Amino acid sequence: MSWLLTEDHLDDLARGAAVLGTGGGGDPYVGRLLVRQAIREFGPVTVLDPSEVDDGALVVPTAQMGAPTVVHEKIPSGAEPVTALRALEDHLGARADATMPIECGGINSMIPLVVAARTGLPVVDADGMGRAFPELQMETFGVYGITGSPMAVAGERGESAVIDTGADNRRMEWLARGVTIRLGGVAHIAEYSMSGADVKRTAIPRTLSLAHTVGSAIREAREHHTDPVAQLADRLGDTLYGHLRVLFRGKISDVERRTEAGFARGRASAVSFDGEHRLDVEFQNEHLVALVDGEVRCVVPDLVCVLDSELAEPITTESLRYGQRVTAIGISTPAIMRTPEALAVFGPAAFGLPYDFRPVESTPQVLHPDGDRTPR
Amino acid sequence: MSWLLTEDHLDDLARGAAVLGTGGGGDPYVGRLLVRQAIREFGPVTVLDPSEVDDGALVVPTAQMGAPTVVHEKIPSGAEPVTALRALEDHLGARADATMPIECGGINSMIPLVVAARTGLPVVDADGMGRAFPELQMETFGVYGITGSPMAVAGERGESAVIDTGADNRRMEWLARGVTIRLGGVAHIAEYSMSGADVKRTAIPRTLSLAHTVGSAIREAREHHTDPVAQLADRLGDTLYGHLRVLFRGKISDVERRTEAGFARGRASAVSFDGEHRLDVEFQNEHLVALVDGEVRCVVPDLVCVLDSELAEPITTESLRYGQRVTAIGISTPAIMRTPEALAVFGPAAFGLPYDFRPVESTPQVLHPDGDRTPR
Repeated sequence: MSWLLTEDHLDDLARGAAVLGTGGGGDPYVGRLLVRQAIREFGPVTVLDPSEVDDGALVVPTAQMGAPTVVHEKIPSGAEPVTALRALEDHLGARADATMPIECGGINSMIPLVVAARTGLPVVDADGMGRAFPELQMETFGVYGITGSPMAVAGERGESAVIDTGADNRRMEWLARGVTIRLGGVAHIAEYSMSGADVKRTAIPRTLSLAHTVGSAIREAREHHTDPVAQLADRLGDTLYGHLRVLFRGKISDVERRTEAGFARGRASAVSFDGEHRLDVEFQNEHLVALVDGEVRCVVPDLVCVLDSELAEPITTESLRYGQRVTAIGISTPAIMRTPEALAVFGPAAFGLPYDFRPVESTPQVLHPDGDRTPR
Repeated sequence: MSWLLTEDHLDDLARGAAVLGTGGGGDPYVGRLLVRQAIREFGPVTVLDPSEVDDGALVVPTAQMGAPTVVHEKIPSGAEPVTALRALEDHLGARADATMPIECGGINSMIPLVVAARTGLPVVDADGMGRAFPELQMETFGVYGITGSPMAVAGERGESAVIDTGADNRRMEWLARGVTIRLGGVAHIAEYSMSGADVKRTAIPRTLSLAHTVGSAIREAREHHTDPVAQLADRLGDTLYGHLRVLFRGKISDVERRTEAGFARGRASAVSFDGEHRLDVEFQNEHLVALVDGEVRCVVPDLVCVLDSELAEPITTESLRYGQRVTAIGISTPAIMRTPEALAVFGPAAFGLPYDFRPVESTPQVLHPDGDRTPR
């Protein structure tokens, strides 16, 4: 059923989206403020269940693109993604019937809501990554045959570029990234325009609702002084993201981060409180892999989420700091993201990682003497 | 009057265009081969005098964009500029009635001829630089109010980007350069689409004919064993480019060249044969300024051309080599290129040069003891 998204949903939604963003997808504080302003100015947003979208409807996903390290300092006005949408509509010679997120994340779950508030379009409760990924070809839309092209990239001065690379979504990413770098490291996009029938076939369904579920589970646990990670594991059990593993608890000991070729790349390390164990997380905008004592415990496309140990607040890659006390969790992904064709596009090898994919729920549970435990 | 351009024109045209290209605008050998192939395959090209273009006609200039250092190694098939033209036409929802060069140069006087041969469109005998300049905002079209946007950039795999920066032609250049870099350092473009009336108002007229005149003057002098520079000066006297000055004769002693941010930048030096005098030329794709013994003798927008001393063959910046015996000449530009609004866009200050513009014909004639002379 469709539902009306109001200001009251935003705290939970942004927090949950940032958890699903696996360290990327943008800062939830900025994302929340953007939607709040848009809803106050233009009114609430209708969220459509994917089953409600007409097969013949034109759905145009919208998003922000760029290095989180830059996004952090370059806040959009909210008009930019609408510029991208309009540029693509003009190019297509057709008007969108709805917009949709391309990924989950503190900002990228929110941008389509801003577009929806400003344009009066509904938002489809689904996306093309089921988490956040750093590159535009890494979408289930593309994995299952939708071309990203033509796509529009828009800047803050109303400028736009409509890029058409035919069926080559990787080439599209390459050119769009070049434009984004020239636009200052962050831009807004409209891409993978598709029919309602294609949404049903290729999108990860109900990820906005999922983000809200994740965010509210954490909030409720805080209110009831129970363990938010346990609460979250319990809630996820009923969703397509059924398995949660606690990977590590400890203190951030090192962060290496650089903005390179339009991405934030680097790694973070943590040591357990007893000093006996070590966590290493590698990221390209998003967390790609978590190793504990040198062994892979969770790897793309499964979700590696780094949470603040006390409140379970998600920490994005650009906010990781020495000394933070963190809990790293792994969350399993839906089957549609684990097929051979999906793994070819956003599995470990697609990032140059020398590991095979292994579902997080099948990795061994490791209980460390300093109080690690598995909630399920 | 319109005329039919055939293979027989190409040697003179390419040579003359390379002289007017002031070190840039692409390699004339490659340009000549491209047009020869296109004419052999598709037939000769109709060249329209600007006075013959209907005021209401749609004229879409086409060109190659990139660093000459890369162009030199990455030869186009000829299809790329047509891809750019078609992408822009599709975006505009209109078909071009003619194409036109954006600048003079060994390749960029030729690309519109390739487009014309392949599409059957006529080419307008005019351009937007009256020489070659490195950046897309440096066109008389823009100086006199035409917007470059929307423009199309195309790559060798059929991919394209349609860039729209409204009235900001400098921003257009910035984004198009970013796309060009991502396309490997060279791309093909269609931009500054305009009416026939605007062609008459803003273009430098008859520069294809001029290139042919320049090239044939040099050839004829060679055939008659007379001084090609003197012959060239004589022929230019009857054109909008009325003044030619010999700036220097000597031997290239140093070349510093780097490919940087999508441009070939650097400087070349020469010493006179008696070792007493020194020439310094700075370039950004094209020659920007010639200093003799530290004094400005010719500066943008006037033309600094470096010719092989024996045959007066133009030498492009990417072909400058230690030991070449060269004659550097300066050529005056038409009045339309020397107005305050034109100098603001492509005068010395636009390139960060700390010199005022001074017409080449008003600089002092310097006769060096080793046989320099002024042919007029």
